[in-house]
Amino acid sequence: MKINDPAVLEDVTAAFQRYETALVTNDVAVLDELFWIDPKTVRMGATENLYGHEQILAFRKTRSSKNLDRTLQNTMITTFGLDHASAVTEFTRPGESRIGRQSQMWVRIDGDWRIVAAHVSWMD
Amino acid sequence: MKINDPAVLEDVTAAFQRYETALVTNDVAVLDELFWIDPKTVRMGATENLYGHEQILAFRKTRSSKNLDRTLQNTMITTFGLDHASAVTEFTRPGESRIGRQSQMWVRIDGDWRIVAAHVSWMD
Repeated sequence: MKINDPAVLEDVTAAFQRYETALVTNDVAVLDELFWIDPKTVRMGATENLYGHEQILAFRKTRSSKNLDRTLQNTMITTFGLDHASAVTEFTRPGESRIGRQSQMWVRIDGDWRIVAAHVSWMD
Repeated sequence: MKINDPAVLEDVTAAFQRYETALVTNDVAVLDELFWIDPKTVRMGATENLYGHEQILAFRKTRSSKNLDRTLQNTMITTFGLDHASAVTEFTRPGESRIGRQSQMWVRIDGDWRIVAAHVSWMD
Protein backbone atom coordinates (compact mmCIF):
# COMPACT_ATOMS: atom_id res chain seq x y z
CA MET A 1 0.00 0.00 0.00
CA LYS A 2 1.58 3.24 -1.10
CA ILE A 3 1.25 6.03 1.45
CA ASN A 4 1.05 9.60 0.15
CA ASP A 5 1.28 8.76 -3.53
CA PRO A 6 1.70 12.28 -5.00
CA ALA A 7 -1.18 12.02 -7.50
CA VAL A 8 -3.58 10.65 -4.89
CA LEU A 9 -2.52 13.28 -2.37
CA GLU A 10 -3.11 16.00 -4.95
CA ASP A 11 -6.63 14.72 -5.63
CA VAL A 12 -7.57 14.48 -1.97
CA THR A 13 -6.09 17.90 -1.22
CA ALA A 14 -8.20 19.41 -4.00
CA ALA A 15 -11.33 17.75 -2.60
CA PHE A 16 -10.44 18.92 0.91
CA GLN A 17 -9.98 22.51 -0.29
CA ARG A 18 -13.22 22.36 -2.23
CA TYR A 19 -14.99 21.30 0.95
CA GLU A 20 -13.35 24.11 2.94
CA THR A 21 -14.45 26.74 0.42
CA ALA A 22 -17.98 25.33 0.43
CA LEU A 23 -18.02 25.41 4.23
CA VAL A 24 -17.08 29.05 4.65
CA THR A 25 -19.37 30.16 1.81
CA ASN A 26 -22.22 27.91 3.00
CA ASP A 27 -22.46 26.21 -0.40
CA VAL A 28 -24.84 23.50 0.78
CA ALA A 29 -24.96 21.77 -2.62
CA VAL A 30 -21.22 21.13 -2.61
CA LEU A 31 -21.16 20.19 1.08
CA ASP A 32 -23.90 17.69 0.36
CA GLU A 33 -22.14 16.35 -2.72
CA LEU A 34 -18.89 15.69 -0.87
CA PHE A 35 -20.44 13.54 1.86
CA TRP A 36 -21.06 9.90 0.98
CA ILE A 37 -24.74 9.36 0.19
CA ASP A 38 -25.34 6.45 2.54
CA PRO A 39 -27.04 5.70 5.87
CA LYS A 40 -23.61 4.73 7.27
CA THR A 41 -22.10 8.19 6.85
CA VAL A 42 -21.36 9.85 10.19
CA ARG A 43 -20.77 13.50 11.09
CA MET A 44 -20.06 14.43 14.68
CA GLY A 45 -20.20 18.20 15.02
CA ALA A 46 -19.36 20.43 17.96
CA THR A 47 -22.95 20.29 19.20
CA GLU A 48 -24.55 17.32 17.41
CA ASN A 49 -24.06 13.71 16.33
CA LEU A 50 -25.52 12.98 12.90
CA TYR A 51 -26.01 9.50 11.49
CA GLY A 52 -26.66 8.98 7.82
CA HIS A 53 -26.60 11.28 4.85
CA GLU A 54 -30.17 12.46 5.39
CA GLN A 55 -29.52 13.78 8.91
CA ILE A 56 -26.39 15.54 7.70
CA LEU A 57 -28.19 17.25 4.83
CA ALA A 58 -31.07 18.33 7.11
CA PHE A 59 -28.50 19.90 9.45
CA ARG A 60 -26.83 21.77 6.58
CA LYS A 61 -30.10 23.27 5.49
CA THR A 62 -30.87 24.73 8.91
CA ARG A 63 -27.35 25.96 9.66
CA SER A 64 -26.79 29.70 9.92
CA SER A 65 -24.88 31.16 7.01
CA LYS A 66 -23.24 33.80 9.23
CA ASN A 67 -19.89 33.81 11.04
CA LEU A 68 -18.49 30.90 9.07
CA ASP A 69 -15.01 32.38 8.58
CA ARG A 70 -12.19 30.33 9.95
CA THR A 71 -8.44 29.92 9.55
CA LEU A 72 -6.84 26.49 9.24
CA GLN A 73 -3.58 25.48 10.89
CA ASN A 74 -1.56 22.26 11.18
CA THR A 75 -3.52 20.64 8.33
CA MET A 76 -2.34 17.09 7.69
CA ILE A 77 -3.63 14.95 4.84
CA THR A 78 -2.36 11.37 4.48
CA THR A 79 -3.38 8.94 1.74
CA PHE A 80 -3.31 5.14 2.08
CA GLY A 81 -3.27 3.35 -1.24
CA LEU A 82 -5.32 4.71 -4.11
CA ASP A 83 -8.72 5.15 -2.51
CA HIS A 84 -8.47 6.11 1.17
CA ALA A 85 -7.27 9.16 3.06
CA SER A 86 -7.26 10.92 6.41
CA ALA A 87 -7.58 14.72 6.57
CA VAL A 88 -7.06 16.39 9.92
CA THR A 89 -6.84 20.10 10.67
CA GLU A 90 -7.02 22.59 13.49
CA PHE A 91 -8.90 25.85 12.97
CA THR A 92 -9.48 29.16 14.69
CA ARG A 93 -12.49 31.45 14.43
CA PRO A 94 -12.75 35.20 15.12
CA GLY A 95 -14.10 35.73 18.64
CA GLU A 96 -13.51 32.12 19.74
CA SER A 97 -10.46 31.51 21.92
CA ARG A 98 -10.66 27.72 21.78
CA ILE A 99 -8.92 25.73 19.06
CA GLY A 100 -11.22 23.81 16.74
CA ARG A 101 -10.35 20.43 15.33
CA GLN A 102 -11.78 18.73 12.24
CA SER A 103 -10.98 15.19 11.17
CA GLN A 104 -12.33 13.43 8.10
CA MET A 105 -11.98 10.03 6.50
CA TRP A 106 -12.19 10.24 2.72
CA VAL A 107 -12.85 7.26 0.41
CA ARG A 108 -12.91 7.21 -3.39
CA ILE A 109 -16.29 5.67 -4.14
CA ASP A 110 -17.25 5.04 -7.76
CA GLY A 111 -14.41 7.35 -8.79
CA ASP A 112 -15.29 10.30 -6.58
CA TRP A 113 -13.67 11.29 -3.28
CA ARG A 114 -16.29 11.36 -0.54
CA ILE A 115 -16.24 11.96 3.22
CA VAL A 116 -17.50 8.84 4.96
CA ALA A 117 -16.89 10.03 8.54
CA ALA A 118 -16.22 13.47 10.02
CA HIS A 119 -15.69 14.81 13.54
CA VAL A 120 -15.55 18.48 14.53
CA SER A 121 -14.94 19.70 18.08
CA TRP A 122 -13.55 22.46 20.25
CA MET A 123 -10.59 21.55 22.39
CA ASP A 124 -11.48 21.74 26.11
CA MET B 1 -14.62 -2.00 -3.20
CA LYS B 2 -16.64 -4.19 -0.87
CA ILE B 3 -18.12 -2.34 2.07
CA ASN B 4 -18.58 -4.25 5.34
CA ASP B 5 -17.18 -7.54 4.12
CA PRO B 6 -18.10 -9.80 7.07
CA ALA B 7 -14.58 -11.17 7.64
CA VAL B 8 -13.01 -7.71 7.50
CA LEU B 9 -15.67 -6.28 9.79
CA GLU B 10 -15.04 -9.08 12.27
CA ASP B 11 -11.30 -8.35 12.31
CA VAL B 12 -11.74 -4.61 12.79
CA THR B 13 -14.37 -5.10 15.48
CA ALA B 14 -11.97 -7.35 17.38
CA ALA B 15 -9.21 -4.73 17.12
CA PHE B 16 -11.64 -2.00 18.22
CA GLN B 17 -12.71 -4.03 21.25
CA ARG B 18 -9.10 -4.81 22.14
CA TYR B 19 -8.39 -1.08 22.09
CA GLU B 20 -11.41 -0.35 24.28
CA THR B 21 -10.35 -2.92 26.88
CA ALA B 22 -6.81 -1.51 26.86
CA LEU B 23 -8.19 2.01 27.31
CA VAL B 24 -10.31 1.32 30.37
CA THR B 25 -7.60 -0.85 31.98
CA ASN B 26 -4.84 1.62 31.04
CA ASP B 27 -2.86 -1.07 29.23
CA VAL B 28 -0.36 1.32 27.71
CA ALA B 29 1.53 -1.39 25.82
CA VAL B 30 -1.57 -2.41 23.87
CA LEU B 31 -2.68 1.20 23.32
CA ASP B 32 0.77 1.91 21.93
CA GLU B 33 0.75 -1.20 19.76
CA LEU B 34 -2.56 -0.33 18.14
CA PHE B 35 -1.53 3.13 16.96
CA TRP B 36 0.46 3.29 13.74
CA ILE B 37 4.15 3.81 14.52
CA ASP B 38 4.69 6.81 12.28
CA PRO B 39 5.21 10.58 12.51
CA LYS B 40 1.98 11.02 10.49
CA THR B 41 -0.26 9.41 13.10
CA VAL B 42 -2.64 11.93 14.69
CA ARG B 43 -4.62 11.79 17.92
CA MET B 44 -6.84 14.69 18.87
CA GLY B 45 -8.01 14.23 22.44
CA ALA B 46 -10.50 16.22 24.48
CA THR B 47 -7.75 18.51 25.77
CA GLU B 48 -4.76 17.97 23.46
CA ASN B 49 -3.70 17.60 19.82
CA LEU B 50 -0.94 15.03 19.35
CA TYR B 51 1.09 14.63 16.18
CA GLY B 52 3.14 11.54 15.58
CA HIS B 53 3.46 8.28 17.41
CA GLU B 54 6.05 9.63 19.86
CA GLN B 55 3.79 12.41 21.17
CA ILE B 56 0.94 9.93 21.55
CA LEU B 57 3.04 7.46 23.51
CA ALA B 58 4.38 10.23 25.79
CA PHE B 59 0.79 11.26 26.51
CA ARG B 60 -0.20 7.69 27.37
CA LYS B 61 2.62 7.36 29.85
CA THR B 62 1.59 10.45 31.82
CA ARG B 63 -2.15 9.80 31.72
CA SER B 64 -3.89 9.07 35.01
CA SER B 65 -4.96 5.46 35.38
CA LYS B 66 -8.02 6.45 37.42
CA ASN B 67 -11.62 7.09 36.40
CA LEU B 68 -11.24 5.45 33.01
CA ASP B 69 -14.57 3.61 33.08
CA ARG B 70 -16.93 4.45 30.29
CA THR B 71 -19.94 3.00 28.50
CA LEU B 72 -20.17 2.97 24.71
CA GLN B 73 -23.33 3.71 22.74
CA ASN B 74 -24.20 4.04 19.06
CA THR B 75 -20.94 2.35 18.00
CA MET B 76 -20.65 2.17 14.21
CA ILE B 77 -17.82 0.38 12.43
CA THR B 78 -17.70 0.44 8.63
CA THR B 79 -15.06 -1.27 6.48
CA PHE B 80 -14.08 -0.15 2.98
CA GLY B 81 -12.35 -2.85 0.97
CA LEU B 82 -9.92 -5.18 2.72
CA ASP B 83 -7.64 -2.74 4.52
CA HIS B 84 -9.51 0.38 5.66
CA ALA B 85 -12.20 1.12 8.22
CA SER B 86 -13.97 3.84 10.16
CA ALA B 87 -14.92 3.27 13.81
CA VAL B 88 -17.12 5.85 15.50
CA THR B 89 -18.73 5.66 18.91
CA GLU B 90 -20.36 7.79 21.56
CA PHE B 91 -19.53 7.19 25.21
CA THR B 92 -20.66 8.25 28.65
CA ARG B 93 -18.64 8.43 31.86
CA PRO B 94 -19.81 8.36 35.49
CA GLY B 95 -20.07 11.93 36.79
CA GLU B 96 -19.88 13.54 33.35
CA SER B 97 -23.16 14.75 31.88
CA ARG B 98 -21.78 15.49 28.42
CA ILE B 99 -21.70 12.87 25.68
CA GLY B 100 -18.24 11.84 24.53
CA ARG B 101 -17.43 10.99 20.94
CA GLN B 102 -14.53 8.94 19.60
CA SER B 103 -13.75 8.47 15.93
CA GLN B 104 -10.90 6.42 14.50
CA MET B 105 -9.58 5.56 11.07
CA TRP B 106 -8.09 2.07 10.99
CA VAL B 107 -5.75 0.79 8.25
CA ARG B 108 -4.29 -2.72 7.87
CA ILE B 109 -0.58 -2.02 7.60
CA ASP B 110 1.77 -4.95 7.02
CA GLY B 111 -1.04 -7.26 8.02
CA ASP B 112 -1.99 -5.59 11.30
CA TRP B 113 -4.91 -3.25 11.94
CA ARG B 114 -3.63 0.09 13.21
CA ILE B 115 -5.25 3.43 14.12
CA VAL B 116 -3.81 6.12 11.85
CA ALA B 117 -6.01 8.97 13.06
CA ALA B 118 -8.21 9.40 16.13
CA HIS B 119 -10.36 12.20 17.52
CA VAL B 120 -11.99 12.29 20.95
CA SER B 121 -14.20 15.12 22.21
CA TRP B 122 -17.05 16.10 24.46
CA MET B 123 -20.16 17.38 22.75
CA ASP B 124 -20.81 21.04 23.62
